Amino acid sequence: MAYFDAASAAPLHPVAREALLASLDEGWADPARLYREGRRARLLLDAAREAAAEAVGCRPDELVFTPSGTQAVHSGVSGALAARRRAGRRLLHSAVEHSSVLHAAEVHEAAGGSRVELAVDRTGRVAADEVAAALAPDTALVCLQSANHEVGTEQPVEEVAALCREAEVPLLVDAAQSLPWGPVPGAWSLLTASAHKWGGPPGVGLLAVRKGTRFAPQGPRDERESGRSAGFENIPAVVAAAASLRALRADPGAGEEADRLRRLVDRIRARVPELVPDVEVAGDPVRRLPHLVTFSCLYVDGEALLHELDRAGFSVSSGSSCTSSTLTPSHVLRAMGVLSEGNVRISLPYGTAEAEVDRFLEVLPRVVRSVRERLDAPATGAGSAAGAGAVPASAPPKAAASATEAAGATGAAASSEAAAPGGPVVDALGKRCPIPVIELAKVIHEVPVGGTVTVLSDDEAARQDIPAWCTMRDQEYVGERAAERGAAYVVRRRA
Amino acid sequence: MAYFDAASAAPLHPVAREALLASLDEGWADPARLYREGRRARLLLDAAREAAAEAVGCRPDELVFTPSGTQAVHSGVSGALAARRRAGRRLLHSAVEHSSVLHAAEVHEAAGGSRVELAVDRTGRVAADEVAAALAPDTALVCLQSANHEVGTEQPVEEVAALCREAEVPLLVDAAQSLPWGPVPGAWSLLTASAHKWGGPPGVGLLAVRKGTRFAPQGPRDERESGRSAGFENIPAVVAAAASLRALRADPGAGEEADRLRRLVDRIRARVPELVPDVEVAGDPVRRLPHLVTFSCLYVDGEALLHELDRAGFSVSSGSSCTSSTLTPSHVLRAMGVLSEGNVRISLPYGTAEAEVDRFLEVLPRVVRSVRERLDAPATGAGSAAGAGAVPASAPPKAAASATEAAGATGAAASSEAAAPGGPVVDALGKRCPIPVIELAKVIHEVPVGGTVTVLSDDEAARQDIPAWCTMRDQEYVGERAAERGAAYVVRRRA
Repeated sequence: MAYFDAASAAPLHPVAREALLASLDEGWADPARLYREGRRARLLLDAAREAAAEAVGCRPDELVFTPSGTQAVHSGVSGALAARRRAGRRLLHSAVEHSSVLHAAEVHEAAGGSRVELAVDRTGRVAADEVAAALAPDTALVCLQSANHEVGTEQPVEEVAALCREAEVPLLVDAAQSLPWGPVPGAWSLLTASAHKWGGPPGVGLLAVRKGTRFAPQGPRDERESGRSAGFENIPAVVAAAASLRALRADPGAGEEADRLRRLVDRIRARVPELVPDVEVAGDPVRRLPHLVTFSCLYVDGEALLHELDRAGFSVSSGSSCTSSTLTPSHVLRAMGVLSEGNVRISLPYGTAEAEVDRFLEVLPRVVRSVRERLDAPATGAGSAAGAGAVPASAPPKAAASATEAAGATGAAASSEAAAPGGPVVDALGKRCPIPVIELAKVIHEVPVGGTVTVLSDDEAARQDIPAWCTMRDQEYVGERAAERGAAYVVRRRA
Repeated sequence: MAYFDAASAAPLHPVAREALLASLDEGWADPARLYREGRRARLLLDAAREAAAEAVGCRPDELVFTPSGTQAVHSGVSGALAARRRAGRRLLHSAVEHSSVLHAAEVHEAAGGSRVELAVDRTGRVAADEVAAALAPDTALVCLQSANHEVGTEQPVEEVAALCREAEVPLLVDAAQSLPWGPVPGAWSLLTASAHKWGGPPGVGLLAVRKGTRFAPQGPRDERESGRSAGFENIPAVVAAAASLRALRADPGAGEEADRLRRLVDRIRARVPELVPDVEVAGDPVRRLPHLVTFSCLYVDGEALLHELDRAGFSVSSGSSCTSSTLTPSHVLRAMGVLSEGNVRISLPYGTAEAEVDRFLEVLPRVVRSVRERLDAPATGAGSAAGAGAVPASAPPKAAASATEAAGATGAAASSEAAAPGGPVVDALGKRCPIPVIELAKVIHEVPVGGTVTVLSDDEAARQDIPAWCTMRDQEYVGERAAERGAAYVVRRRA
């Protein structure tokens, strides 16, 4: 039984458990009260704040506890934007931020603010010079995660923080994924994090607002936590969160453990494309979180894959559309332009046994094969154009066009070539990921080289996975045009 | 050592502690995930929701968990108001609601909505017919607590719920204080509560929205908890909260314990005015929470009183201005028109020993006397107009004018009699509660019967405590007028 989803929630750290138990008896009273029990609660809260601030790299009076990382982000974004209203109402954020940032940005937009989504390259990374180019006099706030929660890619936070400081624009860093591994460097203005990502209990987020950063809390006022987080403080959980974060920082073996997990992830990154044909490994291979890797398997149904892995004793996550309630693929994979079908995210908790990773690598090929067989997928690996172990996906990721450029290209294609494609038409209407791509793969060899095939699909994942398939298969993605139902995707055979 | 502040936070119930420990190991994973650990967490969450819904008296799909009672109120009020926007933007609430309701109402008002504050009588109770009179076609929402958090008075929730249903206006009941003692009766539409009030852990609130009640969650969207409470679920705390509420409901001795605490409170209500001269006991003596009583001591500094009681081993709360960070007295006591100085709230936790209450009654007179001596207070009790045990405060509370009427009367007074008062002027500028009242009491007997005395004060508590003193002392409060600094309060000697 192996839990490989630490990026969702890490099991409780033993220190957190101990601290929680101890503070249940000492920290249940109202810390605003003047009597004994209240003073005791206040002492615990103050000590927890000091410990957390030290681990974050800020002053205790700059840090408040929130009920979750999500609420830290919501409060941080709205408070920073409101305080900067006179300067401007433009919000800059990367296209691969956590949904909590995107949802806060939606609220800002609905209230009349504007936002600019910064494109990422195929590894999921924002270019600092694109941030510099997007910074305008009316920019109110920049949001950039320290590392991505789905593919592990680290963002150039320190560089962007310097640019923001120069432009006198605050930078909010969502550090939920990276804080367990170390403080965020650089001159950020606001920082958010979530305790259950580092083995703290659920119910605790952090919001740090550095001195000199204007901040105007939104929503109903409340005296708790400097007016920045409403509601009675959850002191036992806060104490447990701070104690476990301090324990991680104080652990002399922490660096070694991070290195060990990094090597295990390197092994997964290298071996999976060798063991399983037609796999695309996502994210930056080097500038990344130590414990996290994501890959996608062509012609595989993500939900079935997760189910089979669960049966085999592995708990993993996925960004495939069929595993989300909205039936849209992960916005992170979409922004990167990589395959979303058959997607698996592995994030190793502290102390993951090497043998479990080996067993995963042993089990995975059989599981993927069985899912593909059930879907009647076309031949993969040795039987396809490229030999096993040499599929394009295992090559270093290419620099991708920005989201804007990509959209432009599609538009151009739609008005010229895609308008009169000719060749066979695959009707995949009503069929869900990965069927449209499987049907495309089955007919492409019936088309003469230079000819086109059109896929009709109303599945949201097709928009992302048909171009991604073309990149992996070295075929030409011509473009998309509107259809009576769904869209028509046009592909030209190259070889 | 006696903790008498259960209304702020109750110590953790043993069942809550046990359930929390058990679910730390089973409930840390993301309940939205499809793998084993996620399914286990989901089962725990679902079971907790069923148990909590049963205790509240609603369906499980009508109830969500929030990170605090405060956030349940904020979300409930904003979601209900937003959904009723077409019907109207008028919010009705009692003048004695919890600050979380008042702060949510402020946000509504700042956004262009209107609100009507319903006055209470001298016991802190809203009259149902005043609610009926205030209900207008454009009323969007009515907020009424089930019982008051400072004086324990129960509100006519069932009656008001029937009125609201007839008018097709939703009623939100803040049940934070009463839910530990039983479900809220009647056809309410929304209900909020807070687990740490019943011995559950901090970090859990409840928001119930009955089917058929329109609700539009505000703030950034989030898939958790039916979109009504953002952020990763705190399952161990939620499980502990539900388990302890169920344990309270299932306890065959619960009714008996409530009766026992009710008798202890009756004893405090009867004995304190006998033992301590010049005390006003607040709140309804019968229609009240079983465990809660509040009284105010003339010529006493609330902070000093709390400090002395703490030294004597009693943890109690206070609505006096000198014990709040805002230097304004409790809005509840103000709305009731009762004395705020030397205020003490006692709320007995489950299982409070009778001997502790007796010891409190033994200690209190000495403590009050010592605080009065230090303040050089005027003679009290036998030495004052009324004899000990027969001060007006121990008489049944009189029905009070509504806040609007009171304001009108003051206005009228200011323009006629108060404008040219004559008689001695007491300069209490810069002096804090209870000094202005003490100085008034010292000079009143120097004034001929029918003559007036004017007190200059810039202390917010004087506005409330000088009229309250007049009621207790059977003197005539003439009114207030503006002064160069603070205000001038005019009192006419009656006897």
